[in-house]
Amino acid sequence: MKYPKIPLAQTVIQLCKAKNIKHIVISPGSRNAPLTIGFSNDPFFKCYSIVDERCAAFFALGIAQQIEAPVVVVCTSGSALLNYYPAVAEAFYSEIPLIVLSADRPKHLQNIGDGQTINQKNVYENHILHSANLKLDVKDELNIPLNEDIPIFKNIEDKLERLLGLQKDIQKFNEQEMNDAINKSIFKKGPVHINVPFDEPLYEMVDTLTVSPKNIPITLEEPKIDSYILDQCLNDWRKAKRKMILVGEYAPDKIEQKWLNLLAKDDSVIVLTETTSNLDHGAFITSIDKLIAPLQKEDFIKLQPEILITFGGMVVSKKIKAFLRKYQPKEHWHISETRAYDTYFCLTQHIKETPNYFFSEFLPKAIQVKSSYRNYWTGIKMERNKKHNVFLEDISFSDFKVFDTLFKTLPNDTILQVGNSSAIRYAQLFDIHKSIEVYCNRGTSGIDGSTSTAIGCALAHKRQTNFITGDLSFFYDSNALWNNYIPNSFRIIVINNGGGGIFRILPGHRDTENFDTFFETKHNLNAQHLAEMYNFKYKKVSTLNDLKTALSSFYKESKAPKILEINTVEQANDEILLAYFKALK
Amino acid sequence: MKYPKIPLAQTVIQLCKAKNIKHIVISPGSRNAPLTIGFSNDPFFKCYSIVDERCAAFFALGIAQQIEAPVVVVCTSGSALLNYYPAVAEAFYSEIPLIVLSADRPKHLQNIGDGQTINQKNVYENHILHSANLKLDVKDELNIPLNEDIPIFKNIEDKLERLLGLQKDIQKFNEQEMNDAINKSIFKKGPVHINVPFDEPLYEMVDTLTVSPKNIPITLEEPKIDSYILDQCLNDWRKAKRKMILVGEYAPDKIEQKWLNLLAKDDSVIVLTETTSNLDHGAFITSIDKLIAPLQKEDFIKLQPEILITFGGMVVSKKIKAFLRKYQPKEHWHISETRAYDTYFCLTQHIKETPNYFFSEFLPKAIQVKSSYRNYWTGIKMERNKKHNVFLEDISFSDFKVFDTLFKTLPNDTILQVGNSSAIRYAQLFDIHKSIEVYCNRGTSGIDGSTSTAIGCALAHKRQTNFITGDLSFFYDSNALWNNYIPNSFRIIVINNGGGGIFRILPGHRDTENFDTFFETKHNLNAQHLAEMYNFKYKKVSTLNDLKTALSSFYKESKAPKILEINTVEQANDEILLAYFKALK
Repeated sequence: MKYPKIPLAQTVIQLCKAKNIKHIVISPGSRNAPLTIGFSNDPFFKCYSIVDERCAAFFALGIAQQIEAPVVVVCTSGSALLNYYPAVAEAFYSEIPLIVLSADRPKHLQNIGDGQTINQKNVYENHILHSANLKLDVKDELNIPLNEDIPIFKNIEDKLERLLGLQKDIQKFNEQEMNDAINKSIFKKGPVHINVPFDEPLYEMVDTLTVSPKNIPITLEEPKIDSYILDQCLNDWRKAKRKMILVGEYAPDKIEQKWLNLLAKDDSVIVLTETTSNLDHGAFITSIDKLIAPLQKEDFIKLQPEILITFGGMVVSKKIKAFLRKYQPKEHWHISETRAYDTYFCLTQHIKETPNYFFSEFLPKAIQVKSSYRNYWTGIKMERNKKHNVFLEDISFSDFKVFDTLFKTLPNDTILQVGNSSAIRYAQLFDIHKSIEVYCNRGTSGIDGSTSTAIGCALAHKRQTNFITGDLSFFYDSNALWNNYIPNSFRIIVINNGGGGIFRILPGHRDTENFDTFFETKHNLNAQHLAEMYNFKYKKVSTLNDLKTALSSFYKESKAPKILEINTVEQANDEILLAYFKALK
Repeated sequence: MKYPKIPLAQTVIQLCKAKNIKHIVISPGSRNAPLTIGFSNDPFFKCYSIVDERCAAFFALGIAQQIEAPVVVVCTSGSALLNYYPAVAEAFYSEIPLIVLSADRPKHLQNIGDGQTINQKNVYENHILHSANLKLDVKDELNIPLNEDIPIFKNIEDKLERLLGLQKDIQKFNEQEMNDAINKSIFKKGPVHINVPFDEPLYEMVDTLTVSPKNIPITLEEPKIDSYILDQCLNDWRKAKRKMILVGEYAPDKIEQKWLNLLAKDDSVIVLTETTSNLDHGAFITSIDKLIAPLQKEDFIKLQPEILITFGGMVVSKKIKAFLRKYQPKEHWHISETRAYDTYFCLTQHIKETPNYFFSEFLPKAIQVKSSYRNYWTGIKMERNKKHNVFLEDISFSDFKVFDTLFKTLPNDTILQVGNSSAIRYAQLFDIHKSIEVYCNRGTSGIDGSTSTAIGCALAHKRQTNFITGDLSFFYDSNALWNNYIPNSFRIIVINNGGGGIFRILPGHRDTENFDTFFETKHNLNAQHLAEMYNFKYKKVSTLNDLKTALSSFYKESKAPKILEINTVEQANDEILLAYFKALK
């Protein structure tokens, strides 16, 4: 096999291999050649080439989201790594392991006006779990030619010994930093940055490795909940008649069904989930806004929980956040091995375990109390669902109708990726089959990389991935389609309402001048040209009948991925949505 | 007129106006609504709406590059501002004033798991002249409801007075920070970041301003060179027989022709320029690589200067950097009001003035000495040009031939924007008419925003802007074309060689496996679909005759901007370039 000659490149690659990191997303460049050579010549790694680093990083994020293990992105020096930043921030808030390997100039060529050189060290400081700034070698660190004499050394042997010692220190430092970074990415779940300086010549290869870096494994502690905390929780639980469990973004199949069943059986418990929670039980309230939107003050008082348990990532619903901030529970426990945000300004306990572990310790001991809380609110839920169905009977073709149609026809056992932000908000209003897994980049809720993420997911998951997105988000990430790894089963559904229609439903826009240009950002674009450019099958519909016809064959096997563009430009989407919330009352 | 109700938004907008900042590039969002409302309702400002923030910032950079004054970019909270970062870094190294206004959540909604919220403060730390983290108001800073009593105050009057005082302090702080940031952007020339927190309601407006922030003008010192330094320089100059002046990226018309003429007349002086230096004199050496490439050790010794004067930004030629690092001058003076990099590891003097001022003080007093230095090297230059012309007679259609053809037919009195990195490297090998101004993003030398920059330039400059780019750079920035402000006179020339052809001429690639995928990143894309999508006229050529025919009408007035795609995919571009350097010997 061929290896890069530079020992630092070997160190980086061998440690990735030792830690079983397989997926390597490479963007072209010269400075990163030692890494590119090393990764692409070793069949252990599965390498991908993506030119636009913004897309490359979101693509990697999509893979990592599915395999729940770190994916590496590799880029050259200069502004390349800045284009990773949106995905790095998304990974940071979504707790997805992502390893950025940025090639850099050697130390002595930094900050001297050399080309394609920026201050790469700690560049993601605000949104990174660890920044490892590796060192090239003793020569670069000391900036002294090895064959030159230095006065402080008595003789040449002294000097060589000292330099050899320093070189060992550097190698040790690099190995420790690499281990720290990758281990943190795995057990703290998030992005890390490893900056790797290389000097020319960059393209030289050798047949045998010259370094064998040490893999320091992660030592994970056995989960164990403090018995004092557990008793306290059990005590609070016994006394409370209104308990709310609110689940944010959450990966599927992480909680045993028996715990969910226990929660669903408790009269004093309501469980609120979103499509991205990937939790299913008939008794759960799966559409928060549908429940909350029509409530009045007296209802809020009834809904106010005494205990709030949260787990999972970001919550989509703004209404539940506003409600819980105003009608705070006495106790708010957040369950997460990693972080707890005080989202409702009343956090009382961060339980640093997985929800499944916590429930396994807690629920068998928890005493169920009599309460009308669950029955009352599931009753309201049923009422809402009736009104929801009545409303749907009468409305014209619109974003709302489109989402209803899509959600009723999505094939079972598939993955659904959803774009920000109107798409994921609409998605909360409709039921989805429990066999469908749902994902959305809600860490930063950006419109910047949803398509790339969906493609990464499509590649990593055996099941078919379908992606529903609004037009702004789709065109924003148009370079996502510049990707040679898109499975033929991948499907994109673009709901094109000619601009950022979501702004129409936000308060206050109505009287602002320039609304069309600066808020809604109207456009006449469609996806057809991109479909042709990147060899997607393409169909455009603008009526309900055409949509239904198109959907009847859309998900079937095909020799190329497909885009379905649904045009609702001429529709009063905002008015229909407002009418919907009125109709729920 | 309508103003945003929030005083902080008024402060920001009024200070931009007071400082005569007119161009405002807005990306859609809700959190930035107070700024969007304020800027777009005031006819003083020229506002642009660009959805993709990466393109928006490079577009703004292109405008700022031309007007040599700050341009504002405005975005919402979250990952939006991370997409500005590539352009921020380019502005930092190219010394172009750019003001980032990022809307943020109020302080009490940061770091609590709220949506679309990241750690925005100081996020560009490594590449920014100033980060102003503005404060919303006293309520947000203290997180206390104004109508609530606080024990530390004796009575309600005490409290109100204290709060009023704090509010005044905050207003003063914000005004000072805004002034500092904008002033630095102007006199230090570069990007600044102003982070502006807003709380809901965001869309409210008022008819009269409620704040009148104070504009603190910049106090510029009169230029004055230290007489001791000047004498020292004059003394060194008098003694040296070999003086080299090397000019990096430099805006046109900054140096009086009389000083250039004086330099050109000096037997002991050679002036080396690049296309991006925008300096012209028949005696100057305008193609550095053409001169240096064939030199041997004994020639280098002849070329080695005793004094090196540099000014301007980044230098494209790698060969001159390698040469000067090895054959260092005794004296290296860099002339710049702002920064001096020790690019050749021998910087002896940073003269903190404009080159024109320095020459006006220095050259009238400088004694010209007898030397054969200039005559010898201009002789070599003539020889090279002859060989260059002979070489051109015989070669087939290729990137090299294309550049020759393009440079011979570019219309006079136009602007040429060039993409990174093969395009700008090729450009150095051909003469260009002195009436043509040349620009390229060489701050970070990224391929990420060249088209957007060129469009910003086209908008800001009265003259026609033509943009020559390679294929990777063009497709990377494809969203640049999603822009409603492109003048019909704008022209794009895409030289499509099917991938990153530049890697073919770098050393060492030949024996690496996977070269096509991971280095050259071969593709079959063409620009036609994008042209159709964004209403550009489009033509594709792949022979010299077709190219010449196309060029005969390409630059003429038209009702839409145009793309000319030149296909050299099948050509041995790398071999021709290597043969060229051989032929110069």
